[in-house]
Amino acid sequence: MKIICKKSNLLKGVTIVMKAVSSRTTMPILECILIDASSDVIKLTANDMELGIQTEVEGTIEETGMIAVNAKILSEIIRKLPDNDITIRSMENNQTSITCEKAKFDIPGREAEEFSYLPKVEKEGSIALSQFVLKEAIRQTIFSISDSETNKLMTGELFEIKENYLRLATLDGHRISIRRIEMEGNFEEKKLVIPGKTLTEISKILSGEIENEVIISYTDNHVVFEFDKTIVVSRLIEGEYFKIDQMLSKDYETKVTINKKEFLNCIDRATLLVKEGDKKPVIIRIEDERMELQINSQMGSMNEEILIEKEGKDLLIGFNPKFLIDALRAIDEEEITIYLMNPKAPCFIKNEEESYLYLILPVNFSTAV
Amino acid sequence: MKIICKKSNLLKGVTIVMKAVSSRTTMPILECILIDASSDVIKLTANDMELGIQTEVEGTIEETGMIAVNAKILSEIIRKLPDNDITIRSMENNQTSITCEKAKFDIPGREAEEFSYLPKVEKEGSIALSQFVLKEAIRQTIFSISDSETNKLMTGELFEIKENYLRLATLDGHRISIRRIEMEGNFEEKKLVIPGKTLTEISKILSGEIENEVIISYTDNHVVFEFDKTIVVSRLIEGEYFKIDQMLSKDYETKVTINKKEFLNCIDRATLLVKEGDKKPVIIRIEDERMELQINSQMGSMNEEILIEKEGKDLLIGFNPKFLIDALRAIDEEEITIYLMNPKAPCFIKNEEESYLYLILPVNFSTAV
Repeated sequence: MKIICKKSNLLKGVTIVMKAVSSRTTMPILECILIDASSDVIKLTANDMELGIQTEVEGTIEETGMIAVNAKILSEIIRKLPDNDITIRSMENNQTSITCEKAKFDIPGREAEEFSYLPKVEKEGSIALSQFVLKEAIRQTIFSISDSETNKLMTGELFEIKENYLRLATLDGHRISIRRIEMEGNFEEKKLVIPGKTLTEISKILSGEIENEVIISYTDNHVVFEFDKTIVVSRLIEGEYFKIDQMLSKDYETKVTINKKEFLNCIDRATLLVKEGDKKPVIIRIEDERMELQINSQMGSMNEEILIEKEGKDLLIGFNPKFLIDALRAIDEEEITIYLMNPKAPCFIKNEEESYLYLILPVNFSTAV
Repeated sequence: MKIICKKSNLLKGVTIVMKAVSSRTTMPILECILIDASSDVIKLTANDMELGIQTEVEGTIEETGMIAVNAKILSEIIRKLPDNDITIRSMENNQTSITCEKAKFDIPGREAEEFSYLPKVEKEGSIALSQFVLKEAIRQTIFSISDSETNKLMTGELFEIKENYLRLATLDGHRISIRRIEMEGNFEEKKLVIPGKTLTEISKILSGEIENEVIISYTDNHVVFEFDKTIVVSRLIEGEYFKIDQMLSKDYETKVTINKKEFLNCIDRATLLVKEGDKKPVIIRIEDERMELQINSQMGSMNEEILIEKEGKDLLIGFNPKFLIDALRAIDEEEITIYLMNPKAPCFIKNEEESYLYLILPVNFSTAV
């Protein structure tokens, strides 16, 4: 095999597929990128058996063939070569030379046959949406995924396709985050639970342009994302996802409208006094047109008042400040509305259309504060 | 005590003195910043007993007094407060309140009397130079300081004041880095060995402007840096520094002139194939008008050629690539000249005036390459 590509193109391609290279494995082939120039396009592929990524790279094929090369070494070499044409050539024994201007690297390659191709997926259905919309919706929900392996389903994110919308949801036992995206068309109901890692990596390689599309196809076991000459294939998490609709309630006793930035900055300041791992709640007193935040720890105490609009009862309630911060950071609106019931019931931060909804459970605190 | 300062001024002052706050100590007072508003200026001081920093902060004193406050908590609170006037007030039991707009923090303070003031230094001599020049000279030499505590002198940097120059030098047993700064005037000879940590911290707080001055004063035990309403006092390392002039030689058999950037990029690429901790040398073959660099490791091999100007003999010599990279990064010139003797003798990278000089010892390598 012998190919010639511009450094920038090669680097872009390698950076994309690197996201699917195993970082911890005892099988050297899983640490490799397959360079496939056996047809008339140059394709790079990586596959850690859970997640596989393939992308096309512009360039010239001077000799067809395939070779698998250690991803880390390949990417570092390309990164450090001059900004010019790079020639990659595989020779006998899979020895691979990478040359650019007067620099020449020789590294050992591996037999392409050892490499596991992406699975062939017989698509059952598919939807198309803007890369920007998908990237944003992932960012706005993925933080409340659980990283515990005790409940595998909690490490995934629900993609629920139904009628004319796609709904993304995550939960970790203390909170639920939901984003709803309107779509054109009417779709058959389908629930996919996609591993959090897959979505994290996809977020990094989506261009995020509004006008660029991503097509999501699915079967019972796999989901495929296609965009910008790149294909991402991921296994789904098996099992039935939590019945989140049953956890959502429309009742409330107190409704608060507040400036998001003021609220966020105030909680952010309060967390200064909380050491990591310490579970000090921030205590919120809602009274008339004011919200008072208060935190007490060994390091000191802090309190601050914010003007609000309020409907309903006064209330004293405690929250894990991190959960509030995560939700507030995911919301773009300047003003937000919070619905509360009582000091033991979850609060809901949502807009009227419910294009976003964040449920957060409160925390017990001694009232002797 | 009650003072009012703009957030930006307070933050700048705290950030400066923080550099002298102990990170690991069992004495809580060493983790504090002293806020001294006992006279007509507000002074912040930190002192870890080796290094002490004091700086003035603009602001209004409404009630004179002093208080010591945990540096980390103070700096984090100030950082997160709104960009407005901040009031700091100490009360009975050293309780300290920090307020800004509607936010109010209460943290415990400590008795100012516990705090160790900066030592009074009776200056024996002093020199003045541009902050930019000092900051650059430190950057260009400090990398070859040794961090081993077995030879305390190696952890310091020599400041040699003599006639009309200041010479900075560091060495670690494998290399020597020297910068010479011309000064106006004629000074009595004096050698100071300043702890590396002091210089690292000073570098961070020097503004680095050419027109701003720094005054360096000294005694046998201390050195004092004064600039921008800030005073830094550091202990000196005791003992007589190495006789570096005896290690420098003017003889050479081969003289090479080379483009610095090309040489640096080439070595940088070669180090890709060297795992951290692995002591693979880069092998340099100087032949006619060419320099060939070569590296071989388990990961693969690399070679590259660079055009040079050469006087004298051909040569094959090996170096630790990191040492070459460090020296080349410290040199601003586009073209550099390297003086070599034989494969066992050190090489010198220097300019004609010897305003900079880098000595690097070569590394043995098997000639079976």
